[in-house]
Amino acid sequence: MFRPEIKVIDCTIRDGGLMNKSNFSLEMVRAIYTALCAAGVDYVELGYRNSKAHFSTEEYGAWRFCDEDMLHKAIDGVPNRKGTKLAVMQDAHKASADDMLPKEKSLVDMVRVATYVKDVDKAIALANSAHEKGYQTTINVMAVSTALDRELDEALQQIEAETNVIACYIVDSNGALYSEDVDYLVHKYQRFLKTKEIGVHCHNQQQLAYANTIEAIIKDVNFLDGTLYGLGRAAGNCPLELLIGFLKNPKFDIHPVLDVISKEILPLKKTIEWGYNVPYMVCGMLNMHPLEAIKLVELPDGNPDKYNYAKFYARMSGEVFEEN
Amino acid sequence: MFRPEIKVIDCTIRDGGLMNKSNFSLEMVRAIYTALCAAGVDYVELGYRNSKAHFSTEEYGAWRFCDEDMLHKAIDGVPNRKGTKLAVMQDAHKASADDMLPKEKSLVDMVRVATYVKDVDKAIALANSAHEKGYQTTINVMAVSTALDRELDEALQQIEAETNVIACYIVDSNGALYSEDVDYLVHKYQRFLKTKEIGVHCHNQQQLAYANTIEAIIKDVNFLDGTLYGLGRAAGNCPLELLIGFLKNPKFDIHPVLDVISKEILPLKKTIEWGYNVPYMVCGMLNMHPLEAIKLVELPDGNPDKYNYAKFYARMSGEVFEEN
Repeated sequence: MFRPEIKVIDCTIRDGGLMNKSNFSLEMVRAIYTALCAAGVDYVELGYRNSKAHFSTEEYGAWRFCDEDMLHKAIDGVPNRKGTKLAVMQDAHKASADDMLPKEKSLVDMVRVATYVKDVDKAIALANSAHEKGYQTTINVMAVSTALDRELDEALQQIEAETNVIACYIVDSNGALYSEDVDYLVHKYQRFLKTKEIGVHCHNQQQLAYANTIEAIIKDVNFLDGTLYGLGRAAGNCPLELLIGFLKNPKFDIHPVLDVISKEILPLKKTIEWGYNVPYMVCGMLNMHPLEAIKLVELPDGNPDKYNYAKFYARMSGEVFEEN
Repeated sequence: MFRPEIKVIDCTIRDGGLMNKSNFSLEMVRAIYTALCAAGVDYVELGYRNSKAHFSTEEYGAWRFCDEDMLHKAIDGVPNRKGTKLAVMQDAHKASADDMLPKEKSLVDMVRVATYVKDVDKAIALANSAHEKGYQTTINVMAVSTALDRELDEALQQIEAETNVIACYIVDSNGALYSEDVDYLVHKYQRFLKTKEIGVHCHNQQQLAYANTIEAIIKDVNFLDGTLYGLGRAAGNCPLELLIGFLKNPKFDIHPVLDVISKEILPLKKTIEWGYNVPYMVCGMLNMHPLEAIKLVELPDGNPDKYNYAKFYARMSGEVFEEN
């Protein structure tokens, strides 16, 4: 038995791009897109449509901008028998409405606007502009584990009243939510968002990304984000292979997912360090952004702080550290 | 707020020993035991007390047998201000009651008897013998995700009626349980075990070991297994650092846990491959023992099957595989 309202969104290239400045080769993106279409994933998010005023095109790869010509190169000729749709993300504070063409001139089906609660007015403006141009839209509320209730409530009220988004997301950027927090937030979203679907995007700092996604499914959340082998910022995301294995919709096929992990994702392990480790866990447990943990992980091997986890924990907790 | 009935059992050396034939150095075991005492863990399981008739002492390390003299070497002189107790495990089908001395001649506090449902009579005999000699005992029902209801019901009835164990465990050897399965099993155990505590021992094949442990806590399970950095068979166990971070008992201290992970556990990553990967995940999803996945992971790097996950999935599912 399955729930036909459930939509699976793969954001491997988009969230994984936070770990390599979106520098994926075109061949890899095509191979991943091909596999995800064969797998029957509902949406593939190939990257950001962010502003070149905010990101250097020298430093950042094509998938930070997702120009239409790159999208053509990524998907033209790829079999898409199950109707997989294309998504891009716009950061409320780093994107411009002008960067979205009218829908009829674009390959993009859905624009997902990522925002902190404080920037919700910018997010609403971007989402509304995209909607007027003919796109499906979502608003994804980042770092929701740190949001104050009265501010989040107001943001959700606005999103309900002022937008036509099809879904509004719980985004656990810090990987800090426990299942009871997911329940609490889903219930809150359901109270305010009477005409929208709810989405969930989890991070794995405490090894709870998949479990929290299941918890959200149980609570009637229908927009579910995953990435191949969990590739994504810090400890990564809900692994798509687990999610596809859990959902019972017969249109999903796990075989191409496993195959593309073997061929395209595993080799990235040599250059990108994502997945559970202690520094990421510490940030998740303390409900902090993983930025400092990422810095620690990126230290060169000889640096004595790199694997000094007790010292890192003390620093992040504001304690005095005494070497023993 | 915390629940004083909760007991945390670390089984790093015992379950981790399934990945290296219990070949840990005495120094490492001492360092780990020292850290766990400082952390305030309730029980430390230092290995198996299994029979030398079943395991070669050439091939297997001292922690497969946990002779009293080795236990002395491991713990003598270690500060133990929080009263951490010592546990060993006996496999119902690979251990002898004769290997347990009377309690007054032993350092061991608790004997945990691991059993499949079919061997429950052997387990009861072992547990009862240990109880009569003065030990605390538990019975840990392995691979419970594959147990037939009527057989498990009968085993639980027997354990309730015929033993003095302080706890009876749900052991998810296959890493196959979802939270709803944990709920179902805890409810079943609670129905039959009116005079015993319930324990949970999870494996991480589907990244649910910690989440399922939390789910069990919510359902009033009080005996909780964890291991340092999840070290254990296949995808490993519920990470102790996460569990200690979650529980609110002020006697727990996460600092020595993080420190010993840095110093003793991380270096093992060079020789033991535990933790989430696709072959382990496939076995968890299919509710199978991870044995075949472990064989795959141990293949030499040049072997073309080692990273061919689609082929492995097809073989484990009994499908015909076609290379594409």
